[in-house]
Amino acid sequence: MAVSTVYTVQSLNSTCSISTPSKTHLKFNQKHLVFYTTSKKTFTTKRASDISCSAEDKTVVIGLAADSGCGKSTFMRRLTSVFGGAAEPPKGGNPDSNTLISDTTTVICLDDYHSLDRTGRKEKGVTALDPRANDFDLMYEQVKAIKDGVAVDKPIYNHVSGLLDPPEVIKPPKILVIEGLHPMYDARVRDLLDFSIYLDISNEVKFAWKIQRDMAERGHSLESIKASIEARKPDFDAYIDPQKQYADAVIEVLPTELIPDDNEGKVLRVRLIMKEGVKFFNPVYLFDEGSTISWIPCGRKLTCSYPGIKFTYGPDTYYGNEVSVLEMDGQFDRLDELIYVESHLSNISTKFYGEVTQQMLKHSDFPGSNNGTGLFQTIVGLKIRDLYEQIVASRVGAPLEATKA
Amino acid sequence: MAVSTVYTVQSLNSTCSISTPSKTHLKFNQKHLVFYTTSKKTFTTKRASDISCSAEDKTVVIGLAADSGCGKSTFMRRLTSVFGGAAEPPKGGNPDSNTLISDTTTVICLDDYHSLDRTGRKEKGVTALDPRANDFDLMYEQVKAIKDGVAVDKPIYNHVSGLLDPPEVIKPPKILVIEGLHPMYDARVRDLLDFSIYLDISNEVKFAWKIQRDMAERGHSLESIKASIEARKPDFDAYIDPQKQYADAVIEVLPTELIPDDNEGKVLRVRLIMKEGVKFFNPVYLFDEGSTISWIPCGRKLTCSYPGIKFTYGPDTYYGNEVSVLEMDGQFDRLDELIYVESHLSNISTKFYGEVTQQMLKHSDFPGSNNGTGLFQTIVGLKIRDLYEQIVASRVGAPLEATKA
Repeated sequence: MAVSTVYTVQSLNSTCSISTPSKTHLKFNQKHLVFYTTSKKTFTTKRASDISCSAEDKTVVIGLAADSGCGKSTFMRRLTSVFGGAAEPPKGGNPDSNTLISDTTTVICLDDYHSLDRTGRKEKGVTALDPRANDFDLMYEQVKAIKDGVAVDKPIYNHVSGLLDPPEVIKPPKILVIEGLHPMYDARVRDLLDFSIYLDISNEVKFAWKIQRDMAERGHSLESIKASIEARKPDFDAYIDPQKQYADAVIEVLPTELIPDDNEGKVLRVRLIMKEGVKFFNPVYLFDEGSTISWIPCGRKLTCSYPGIKFTYGPDTYYGNEVSVLEMDGQFDRLDELIYVESHLSNISTKFYGEVTQQMLKHSDFPGSNNGTGLFQTIVGLKIRDLYEQIVASRVGAPLEATKA
Repeated sequence: MAVSTVYTVQSLNSTCSISTPSKTHLKFNQKHLVFYTTSKKTFTTKRASDISCSAEDKTVVIGLAADSGCGKSTFMRRLTSVFGGAAEPPKGGNPDSNTLISDTTTVICLDDYHSLDRTGRKEKGVTALDPRANDFDLMYEQVKAIKDGVAVDKPIYNHVSGLLDPPEVIKPPKILVIEGLHPMYDARVRDLLDFSIYLDISNEVKFAWKIQRDMAERGHSLESIKASIEARKPDFDAYIDPQKQYADAVIEVLPTELIPDDNEGKVLRVRLIMKEGVKFFNPVYLFDEGSTISWIPCGRKLTCSYPGIKFTYGPDTYYGNEVSVLEMDGQFDRLDELIYVESHLSNISTKFYGEVTQQMLKHSDFPGSNNGTGLFQTIVGLKIRDLYEQIVASRVGAPLEATKA
């Protein structure tokens, strides 16, 4: 049974026009026209080729590739916090929705574009990592529609039941974050991204974390944990990992090098790999842009507890691209360490002195708040805010023009 | 035959008074009274206990310990150049004088305090490094006299003949540098120093340099060079090397670590070890005072030729003292490298942007002008100028008082 409904939703100060085949122009203000059809398992978005909106409020689209965790991820909470306001699931909707909405930002989980539900994947013998279990055509169409200012009716993958639930409406936000396994896999989706991030947890750390959680908290055996990681690896290597090369920023999480032979995964070495030459994105640097630096802030002015903190910064290449890499090994034990480090970083896109520290403190209960994962997630959040503001400013500066879809 | 003469020499804006046993005070202005007696081999200076001068023009005394090279050393030429004016031997004096005089600075060579001439040392079987070959009582008396504003009649050790020549008059300069083997050996002399420097050439580099000079230029054999270094080593280790611990600044010259297994001694790793807590001396630092930093300035902004340049900075301990260490490995190939490095160093006591670079370029023909020896010698020169000016300023600020000798 196919249902077709027209949604009329308010967007953000947008001016859109719809052209009909007869060339009659229907003008409307602060409204969007949305067409969608839905059948049991197929969701489509009416192509927005006939709808054009003013450029200045086009949704900025951010892609975040991460192996696991969707919607509720710490990174997303840090990002939305930078913009102010809390991110919450859509009100009155499916309680199992994976979406998070705040004033400015909507985070959608790409698991919602699974074309096969849990049973379907089992039957066909494919994992969720396999592109064949995902509907990239729909992902592309809907992300494109949102980017063009058109609300869509997005499916919901229910992580509890493993089934595809009825869709939810996603209105065009200021910033759309698409988070999940494959934001940069499909070239068409990739091209829609204004900025892309790959969260790269090394195998050693993944293993240490999984042991900690699954053995200690869930009573799994070491062998079963190893087996589950090994089973996942071929598809991960084939379909997820290669997306790194397209990311504008990669956050790599590695074991510390400050403690010899550490494999606890508690003290981390985290690298922020930032692509050079990305419009509206100026990589963070330490002391001297473009040179190679290592810095142990702990010394006469700042005393750190064992094993201390070490930063490294410098130019490098990553999958053939020029990048700048900022690395933090170790962890913060005290507030003065955090603010001291922040005060020596440049290009962090803060609006006031100590904003990184303020954000980190605000969410000190989030995982990684005392190490490079929290620090770099917060900084990437600030960089995205900056990127968003620069994009908007550049649009305001440019003459308004209808965007050809 | 003993000769006694009274010298009356003009000093620098000084006000001195001489007290006689009968307590009658004889006031005089801009004059110094000097007594000296000289016999064939014994030089004494009338103790200046009865002469007191205003504190503000007391000579600032700098000690420089270095294994070889006296008077004409590059370091001294760099130092005097910082103060402006060229350093020259005393006019009309002994052509073999080891002294260098400029407007502000007089450099005396401590070899002049040899108590044994070449024949005497041979007869007694002692080297010039041995304290028994040196007259520390006279060294102390004369340095003290000069510091107190009293000219002295300093012996001359003739490096050509190996004999002790008749003395030359040394008037109190603004800055007296005592350079040689033992400026910090005798505790009394050491206590007279306002600042002390030890130039520490590592054995590897000494050897490489000696081979280069003595084999290539003088036709010595490798074996004879090794033998001469070995013969010197016990006395060097016993009497010269231990002075390091007293130095306010040590310049260590080591083989490069940028070229694996390099033993040519052409590319150098030079360390400037600066004692903490020395009055009027604030150690140079890189980026963040008191932390540990390594910096390879060559990168996107600055391109360096092989093997590049690497700086290291950080706190350390040296003979039980807190020190800051600044290290430069590699060499400058171009002016932009030098000015780039200078612009990132702090506390270098320059009076205008680029002063270090200007000094280095002015003496680009001096040995070490393209590496850390030249850089750190120049910086130490600037630090000494700063120290001198601070000492003078502190004296002007304090009420004038007669200095008890």
